[in-house]
Amino acid sequence: MPEDSVHRSASGDPVLLTPGPLTTSVAVKQAMQHDAGSRDPAFIEMNRRVRERLVGIAGGSERHLCVPVQGSGTFAVEAMLGSLLPRNGRLLNLVNGAYGRRISTICDYLGRERVELTFPEDRPVDPAQVAAALAADAGITHVALVHCETTSGIANPLTAVADVVRAAGRALLVDAMSSFGALPIDADVLGLAAVAASANKCLQGAPGLAFCIVDEAVLSAADGNAHSLCLDLQAQARAMAGNGQWRFTPPTHCVLALAEALDELQAEGGPPAREARYRNNCRVLVEGMRALGFRPVLEPALQAPIIVTFHQPRDPGWDFTRFYNALAARGFLIYPGKLTEAASFRVGCIGAIDATVITAFLDAVRAVLDELQIHDTGP
Amino acid sequence: MPEDSVHRSASGDPVLLTPGPLTTSVAVKQAMQHDAGSRDPAFIEMNRRVRERLVGIAGGSERHLCVPVQGSGTFAVEAMLGSLLPRNGRLLNLVNGAYGRRISTICDYLGRERVELTFPEDRPVDPAQVAAALAADAGITHVALVHCETTSGIANPLTAVADVVRAAGRALLVDAMSSFGALPIDADVLGLAAVAASANKCLQGAPGLAFCIVDEAVLSAADGNAHSLCLDLQAQARAMAGNGQWRFTPPTHCVLALAEALDELQAEGGPPAREARYRNNCRVLVEGMRALGFRPVLEPALQAPIIVTFHQPRDPGWDFTRFYNALAARGFLIYPGKLTEAASFRVGCIGAIDATVITAFLDAVRAVLDELQIHDTGP
Repeated sequence: MPEDSVHRSASGDPVLLTPGPLTTSVAVKQAMQHDAGSRDPAFIEMNRRVRERLVGIAGGSERHLCVPVQGSGTFAVEAMLGSLLPRNGRLLNLVNGAYGRRISTICDYLGRERVELTFPEDRPVDPAQVAAALAADAGITHVALVHCETTSGIANPLTAVADVVRAAGRALLVDAMSSFGALPIDADVLGLAAVAASANKCLQGAPGLAFCIVDEAVLSAADGNAHSLCLDLQAQARAMAGNGQWRFTPPTHCVLALAEALDELQAEGGPPAREARYRNNCRVLVEGMRALGFRPVLEPALQAPIIVTFHQPRDPGWDFTRFYNALAARGFLIYPGKLTEAASFRVGCIGAIDATVITAFLDAVRAVLDELQIHDTGP
Repeated sequence: MPEDSVHRSASGDPVLLTPGPLTTSVAVKQAMQHDAGSRDPAFIEMNRRVRERLVGIAGGSERHLCVPVQGSGTFAVEAMLGSLLPRNGRLLNLVNGAYGRRISTICDYLGRERVELTFPEDRPVDPAQVAAALAADAGITHVALVHCETTSGIANPLTAVADVVRAAGRALLVDAMSSFGALPIDADVLGLAAVAASANKCLQGAPGLAFCIVDEAVLSAADGNAHSLCLDLQAQARAMAGNGQWRFTPPTHCVLALAEALDELQAEGGPPAREARYRNNCRVLVEGMRALGFRPVLEPALQAPIIVTFHQPRDPGWDFTRFYNALAARGFLIYPGKLTEAASFRVGCIGAIDATVITAFLDAVRAVLDELQIHDTGP
């Protein structure tokens, strides 16, 4: 491979077109060049400020709290379910992909009752069906929604679902992993009970740190719910209200990275500017891949600007692993598909990348198709 | 403060004399200057190699597996208890400090039966009493031991306790958080069922990553135990046996840091050399503090070379916060005490530091005592 046909991120790594982990900025990684004392006032103040800013990004008000959770986003989702679903509650879980199904799996581990309302993986959750399900079952106390299902890349209608859930007097728990920091979330206006998200998606921090934005009244009423010491949001919130500290050794470097990443988000112009950049990345990606004959799985109106799922080509010579490896050799890492209903692969639009990177990626795809002699890229 | 009286680590930070987070090397932090793709073959191979080396450090054999757990060490302890204690099991928990008590708290969250055998915080667990407790209660299936209780800094007699537990035909679960990588652990010879530890203590990696070394037969028999999706060691082990991958987005930067930290451990001469450095740090610290009039809580024979607990001085002008702040201004962060039975403070001996740093710390303590007019440093 000639060196000039290998793309590299600013840190010399392959570009991660995988939505978590993703390519972070050099400054975010440089923030991790320091060791912080977890009980030191400077670090405590940094955490306070980070939590306050995250509440703001969630559209929360003074009645909302940010409770950090170490681990991947799934740790925050499990903490949210375990801490906020009462042991005698019943969850209506809205499912149109693997992350929705994971919420049911978590409930099954926890022994919390859940019913599923499922939709095809390429269709959004339908608020009218949610309203009907809530009307039909008075025992449902909570509803769970995945805002952006990265299984397909679909944006679910958060506002419309929240309106329905609020009108029915139930509590809405949102998995906003792939949307937080880019797509609008208005926790206060929508009356969300809780939002779980991660530092490493649209916020462009390092993986290993997640959090929940929680309505304080909901958290106060959560006594005795938690199934886990580590994932007990109420206990962590109370500890932080007391001394500002994490209960257990925090991932200090990830916190430093997130503080820097939040500075960068603000400098970029906040979530609207970030969404605009991602939408441009997504547009260039989809147009370029279409020009190469690939077909996205989703209708354009349903596509969130986070990750795009493409049908695998019907060409008899197609082999995903060879395609992946050839792109990796050129400096781009992509994602395998996760749809149960169609052979697919995925390309992320998020991270510290802009349209010039997407254009370079498209050049690499073109070169790889030539190299692998793939001619028929349609589904 | 004149600049030449302020100590700084190689990364320009205060020195963390706090055993987790601690001061890591510049190279460990530089390893985090890269973004890794979590499903990329290079990262998968790095994880395989890290896990293999951790089994080796634990004194494990081919029947042992390393299962990574993201989060702090407590996440690994909870994962170990939740995954390996059967729901109808009974744990004998050996307690002489806060980390032992935490194991009981976890069991209470999980609804797993546990009985405590408690010892004073300045005394080691007594194997004869363990043997008697096991003989007296045939319903006990598992025993939990904290190898080094950082509440006091005491080393518990792992080998003698393991001998007793093995002779009684029970399974031993070890919290080796503060000892792993420095103090000898021989999982195979001692027949340990599992050892939980963290990347950020004696291994000198970054916080946010922990792991359990588990006997494969114990893990195979663990069906249906786990209380948590995220903390299910069996599910994580099975996923990794399949594709080598983490189930959920891993803390990639922490993994890169640990890989580098393990290289450094090997270059230093492995755990025996690291233990020797820590013992020297500890000796210089205790001798120097004694010369300044401070008194360690533990008898010398019981002191692990990890963290030293000192009695707070009886001087009427003593105030821990002022002492802490004055040391912090000179570039050293220490730990408050955690003993329930005596007013104390703690100073760590571990991390990327040697006796010259300890000597500089002692100079700072001397200057601070002068500055704060503390004359009577005895307990």
